[in-house]
Amino acid sequence: MNTFKQITSLQNPLIKKTLVLKDKSRERKKSGLFVLEGVRELQLALKGNYSIETLFFCENLISKETVINLTKNNTTAEVIEITLDVYQKIAYRATTEGVMALVKSKEHNLDSLHFSTKKPLILVAEAPEKPGNIGALLRTADAANLDAVIIANPKTDLYNPNIIRSSVGCVFTNKIATGNTTEIIAFLKEHNIATYCAALTASKAYTKVDYAESSAIVVGTEATGLSNEWLNNSTQNIIIPMEGQIDSMNVSVAAAIVIFEAKRQRS
Amino acid sequence: MNTFKQITSLQNPLIKKTLVLKDKSRERKKSGLFVLEGVRELQLALKGNYSIETLFFCENLISKETVINLTKNNTTAEVIEITLDVYQKIAYRATTEGVMALVKSKEHNLDSLHFSTKKPLILVAEAPEKPGNIGALLRTADAANLDAVIIANPKTDLYNPNIIRSSVGCVFTNKIATGNTTEIIAFLKEHNIATYCAALTASKAYTKVDYAESSAIVVGTEATGLSNEWLNNSTQNIIIPMEGQIDSMNVSVAAAIVIFEAKRQRS
Repeated sequence: MNTFKQITSLQNPLIKKTLVLKDKSRERKKSGLFVLEGVRELQLALKGNYSIETLFFCENLISKETVINLTKNNTTAEVIEITLDVYQKIAYRATTEGVMALVKSKEHNLDSLHFSTKKPLILVAEAPEKPGNIGALLRTADAANLDAVIIANPKTDLYNPNIIRSSVGCVFTNKIATGNTTEIIAFLKEHNIATYCAALTASKAYTKVDYAESSAIVVGTEATGLSNEWLNNSTQNIIIPMEGQIDSMNVSVAAAIVIFEAKRQRS
Repeated sequence: MNTFKQITSLQNPLIKKTLVLKDKSRERKKSGLFVLEGVRELQLALKGNYSIETLFFCENLISKETVINLTKNNTTAEVIEITLDVYQKIAYRATTEGVMALVKSKEHNLDSLHFSTKKPLILVAEAPEKPGNIGALLRTADAANLDAVIIANPKTDLYNPNIIRSSVGCVFTNKIATGNTTEIIAFLKEHNIATYCAALTASKAYTKVDYAESSAIVVGTEATGLSNEWLNNSTQNIIIPMEGQIDSMNVSVAAAIVIFEAKRQRS
């Protein structure tokens, strides 16, 4: 029978560190670690070649066998048993799962982005604000099997717990890069990827564009849309024709409509 | 100079009633009233022929002229000035807007649903759970100028504050009906409206269906999809081809992809 190091105190420094890592983007960046909760989420992260530094489990909620199975290919992970009250203090879903971990984050440089297809279809989102929207964008990107998602001028790091949760793990299945708008535009030009920028003032309907060649679909924020830097440097600005009274669309909805039109044309 | 009735106490029965109406679906149904906050939201409701029963405003945040303008075509509304601390107690956005109202809700019977086009395109959502998803569906329906949105087996009333907020007012611009699945299926058959039900197990891609005739696009919940009653009674079950590792799409995203494919075909 395996025995594990145990933590029973809320005052334990590692427990305190975990709470800080959940809350503070700056601490995640500084330490290169983020907090991940749930069996399925951990499996997806491991499948995506993420590495676990510390794994906490609570025997009241999960069996040791499940935990051992989870970590069998991650021999450097330190596995720690924690009490139910400690678990409930640090977990989002206090009565389910029973497992969470400190996981090493990845770099998301543009330079490390390599495409496995000749004519990639990618999504670029500029300064998306709400974690829920980023999660929905990543879910759509996974479903469409996009070649990459690039986030320009990010407002938060990718390992914000609300992004991880709302992406239902798609933060680990997509190729994701981040950067500033200027360097992303240069990167796309260098790779001969056409940019189709969604804009409420564009004259060309998104259905009238041919996405057969390498294409980036670019969306801005719901509040202010894309910056002029994108709009002035695009291959073509595109519009989703609006026929309503309010004409306000969720950004992840707008992106999905254009992405799946591109998929339809390519199929 | 207009003078208005004033409320300065958090213990005032009308203030207590307002708080209950915000929280309790049952109370909204019983009283036929709901709480609405914000100038733009009130304008949209009035444009949609909703009637204000009581309007609260806080002079620290909004001018009397704006309030008088808002209510000028709604002569039955009782206008009440409230103090800043009362306003901040009952408002969601405590430091902006300065105006909220008790508004009379509408019935949303299927019987009162009349189409102004010969070949309507409508959306049906069965048992949508999250207010944010319902709001996003209503935004998409407005943008696509759908002929109606029908909610089957609703989990909450439409006047849930989170639905109103996330719909950015589209709860007032769409024709909306609610009912149970059995009566909605009967209604659609009676009106010769074809039903295209989204299902992960369907064999026909959503792009291979012709939406030119009267059509209802039907979506279920993210967790369990549509009930068998829908799937067994549909004109055609349809699938959005999934090519990812997780294949999980936000319900409002999935609905939008199919709705805008139908729009593309019809344009």
